[in-house]
Amino acid sequence: MTLEILSIGNELLAGFTINSNAAVIGQRLLLSGLTVDRVTLLPDEPSRLKAGIEEAMERSSFIITTGGLGPTGDDLTRDIVAEIFGTTLIYDDAVAEDLIERFSSTLPTLKDQAMVPQGATIFQNPIGTAPGFILSNEKSTVIVLPGVPSQMEALLEEVIPYLEKECKKKSLVKSLYLCQLSEQSVDPLLRTIEKENPALQIGICPSYGTLYIHIHAEEQELIDLASEKILQEFEPYLYSTTSKQIEHAIHEWMIDHKKSFACGESCTGGAMAARLTVISGASDYFLGAIVAYSDTLKQSALNVARESLERYGAVSEEVVREMALGTLKLTGADYVITISGIAGPKGGSEEKPVGTICAAIATKEEIFTGTFLSRGAQKRALVIDYSVTYLLSELWRYLKQNRRPFT
Amino acid sequence: MTLEILSIGNELLAGFTINSNAAVIGQRLLLSGLTVDRVTLLPDEPSRLKAGIEEAMERSSFIITTGGLGPTGDDLTRDIVAEIFGTTLIYDDAVAEDLIERFSSTLPTLKDQAMVPQGATIFQNPIGTAPGFILSNEKSTVIVLPGVPSQMEALLEEVIPYLEKECKKKSLVKSLYLCQLSEQSVDPLLRTIEKENPALQIGICPSYGTLYIHIHAEEQELIDLASEKILQEFEPYLYSTTSKQIEHAIHEWMIDHKKSFACGESCTGGAMAARLTVISGASDYFLGAIVAYSDTLKQSALNVARESLERYGAVSEEVVREMALGTLKLTGADYVITISGIAGPKGGSEEKPVGTICAAIATKEEIFTGTFLSRGAQKRALVIDYSVTYLLSELWRYLKQNRRPFT
Repeated sequence: MTLEILSIGNELLAGFTINSNAAVIGQRLLLSGLTVDRVTLLPDEPSRLKAGIEEAMERSSFIITTGGLGPTGDDLTRDIVAEIFGTTLIYDDAVAEDLIERFSSTLPTLKDQAMVPQGATIFQNPIGTAPGFILSNEKSTVIVLPGVPSQMEALLEEVIPYLEKECKKKSLVKSLYLCQLSEQSVDPLLRTIEKENPALQIGICPSYGTLYIHIHAEEQELIDLASEKILQEFEPYLYSTTSKQIEHAIHEWMIDHKKSFACGESCTGGAMAARLTVISGASDYFLGAIVAYSDTLKQSALNVARESLERYGAVSEEVVREMALGTLKLTGADYVITISGIAGPKGGSEEKPVGTICAAIATKEEIFTGTFLSRGAQKRALVIDYSVTYLLSELWRYLKQNRRPFT
Repeated sequence: MTLEILSIGNELLAGFTINSNAAVIGQRLLLSGLTVDRVTLLPDEPSRLKAGIEEAMERSSFIITTGGLGPTGDDLTRDIVAEIFGTTLIYDDAVAEDLIERFSSTLPTLKDQAMVPQGATIFQNPIGTAPGFILSNEKSTVIVLPGVPSQMEALLEEVIPYLEKECKKKSLVKSLYLCQLSEQSVDPLLRTIEKENPALQIGICPSYGTLYIHIHAEEQELIDLASEKILQEFEPYLYSTTSKQIEHAIHEWMIDHKKSFACGESCTGGAMAARLTVISGASDYFLGAIVAYSDTLKQSALNVARESLERYGAVSEEVVREMALGTLKLTGADYVITISGIAGPKGGSEEKPVGTICAAIATKEEIFTGTFLSRGAQKRALVIDYSVTYLLSELWRYLKQNRRPFT
C-alpha cells in the first residue's frame, strides 16, 4: 500500500505559494499511523496534469490531490480526474442547496461549483464553494481536495476516517524536540540505536536553535526503548514531545505555574510577542510587549537613560538591562525578556557585526544579561527567528532546571 | 528542455518541515526566465530515492536536488547520485582545505564532508560543511545542493549562471499584486485576455485579503499589453508589481514621504510590528509598537480609560480610538494603527463572534475607526494574518488615494 500527494498549481511550481498543504497532510496522517510515500507538484496544464495523475495511479493505491477545484479558468483538476475515470460531471442538487444556503442563490459560480463527477463520493466544503470528492477504480483511489489551506484542512478531517479504514500499513512515530544541541552531538547515538534494532528508523532534523528527532517503528515498545536511550543522555535539552515550537513549552509552564510574562523587543520587532500570542490562551500569562524600535521609545516607554544609549549604544547589555527594569515596572510581569541587536543586513560594525544580540532575562529578584552572535547572520529573518528561539530556550532552561541564563 | 526539482528528506514527507526550498528555487529561476516543470519530494530511503532520481532523469534534462548531503546516517543523496553516474567518492583537497580554514582541522565530520563524486563540478559551501556539485551524462544534468535553506540559497546563486547558459527555453513573467478584490471579480477579464491571445498564460492566486496575478509569455510586449488591460479596470487595487507583501508597499511609501508609523496591538499580538520590521530598513520609519495584551497594559502604557474598558469592552471602537490617541502620544508617530479583536478560538460571544476586529487608523489630525469580521475565522493564526493584511491595505489606500478607511 502506498499513498502519495499531488499538489496542483502553477503558483506552487513558480514558488509564489509555498506548499504548506502537503506538510499539513503529512503531519495529520502521521497521527493516524499513515505515512506519505511521495509528494509531487504538478502544473495547471491539461496534458501534464493528466499524465502526472495517471503516473501516480500506476505507482500508488491512494492519491490525495489538492488544488485546481475553484471556478476560474485555470482550475482543471475536477475535469481531468473525471476524464481519467471515464465519467462526466453532473449537477448535484445537495451541493447546490448547501451553496445556496451558505452563499445565497445569486452566487455567480453556483452552476460551476455544484458540478461533480458522476459516481463520486462527495464531501461538502463547509467553508468555501468547491466540494471535495473520492473516485476509485481497481488500480487506485483518488481523493480530490481544494487547495485553499483552511478548506483543505476541513475536508481532510472528513476523509481521514475513510483512509484509516482502507489503509492497512501502520507506522508509529514519537518525536523528541531538543534545544541547544548540535546535530553532530546526537547523531552517533541514534545510528548506534538503529544498528542494534533495524526495525527502527530514526530521523534527525536540525532547525535554527532546535533539533527534532523522530523515531519510527511499527511497535510502540521499540519506540519507547529508543526514546529512553536517547533521553538518558540528552534529557536536559528536551523541551517537548508534542510541539517543535519552544514557545509552547513556555506557554504551558507559565500557565501551570500561574506566572506572567512580558517582553521588550528592539531588533526582533515584535516577533517574540507574535510567536507567543499566536497560541490560543496566551492571554492567561502574556501581559504584553513594548516593541521599542526607536531610541526615543526606549526612553519614553521603558525609561532607558539617554546617557546609556549614548555611552553604550542601543545594542548593549546596559541598555537591555534598563529595558528589562522598564518592562518589569510597566507591565508588572513575573518574567521578562528584553532584546536589542543588529538584525542586518545593514548596521553592523567591526566591533558589533550583523547578528550581534544583547539580551536580558529578568524577574523582580534578579537580572541576567548576555551577548551572543545569532546563527543565520546572512539573513535578517533568520537572525530574528533564531534570536527568539534561542532566548526562549534560555528562559525555558532557567525555569525548568534553574540553569543560569547566558552561561 | 524540462527542469525539475527533487526535494529529499523524510521530514518533508512527514510534514515536520515545509518545503520552502522548492518555492525559493522556483522564484529565483523565474527571475532568469526559467520555469520549473515538476517538484517531487522523495524519502531518505535508498531504493526509493534511487528510483525517484532515475525516473526524473528519464523525464527531464535538468534536475536540481536539495537535501541529504549532511554527515549523518540518513544523508544519502551524494552516494546515490554517484552510484547512478557510475562514479566513486574521492577526498577533495580543495574542499578539505576550505573546511579546515572555516571550521578548523578538528571538525569531526571533515573526512566525510570532503568526499565528493569523482568527475563532478564542485561548488564549495560558503556557510555549512556540505559542498554542492553537478554531474552530467547524455540524458541529463543533475545539480546537487544542500537542504539547509541558507546554504541552498548561497549555492543556488553559483549554479544559476550555469543554468542560464545551458537552458534554452525562456519564459517571462509579470506579477500584479492587488488588495481588497475577490478572485471572481477579476477572473472573467483574465480569461477574455487569454482567449484573445493564446500565447499568454495568466494565473490567479487568492490569498487572505490579497490577490496575485501572474502573466506569463515569451514576449515582453504581450505581457505589457495584458497588464495594461487589467490595470485599466483594477489599478486602484494594485499595491505592488514586485512583492506580495502589502507591508513592502507601506514601507516604501513611508520612507519616500519621510513619515513615521507606530502601532498599538492587542489581538494581533505583535504580528503587525513583526511583519513590518522583518523588512530591512524599517527603522527609517517604524518607531515601535505597544502590544497591550492585558487590560492593565492598555491603561498604563496607552492611557485607555478603565471606564471605557468596562463600559464598551476591550474589543470596541471606543477602546481602539483611545489606544490610537495613546499610541500617537507615546510614540509621536505621523500614522498609527491600533487593533483589538477576538482571534479565537475561544472568547467569542453572540454579539462579538470569533473574528470580530475593531481597529483605528489615525494621524494627529483625524481618527477613523471601524469594525469588521476577519476571514479565516476558523483559525487563530489566519485571523491574525488576515487582520494585519486588511488593515495595512486600508492604510495603504488611505495614503495613496486618500480613500476614507473602513467605508
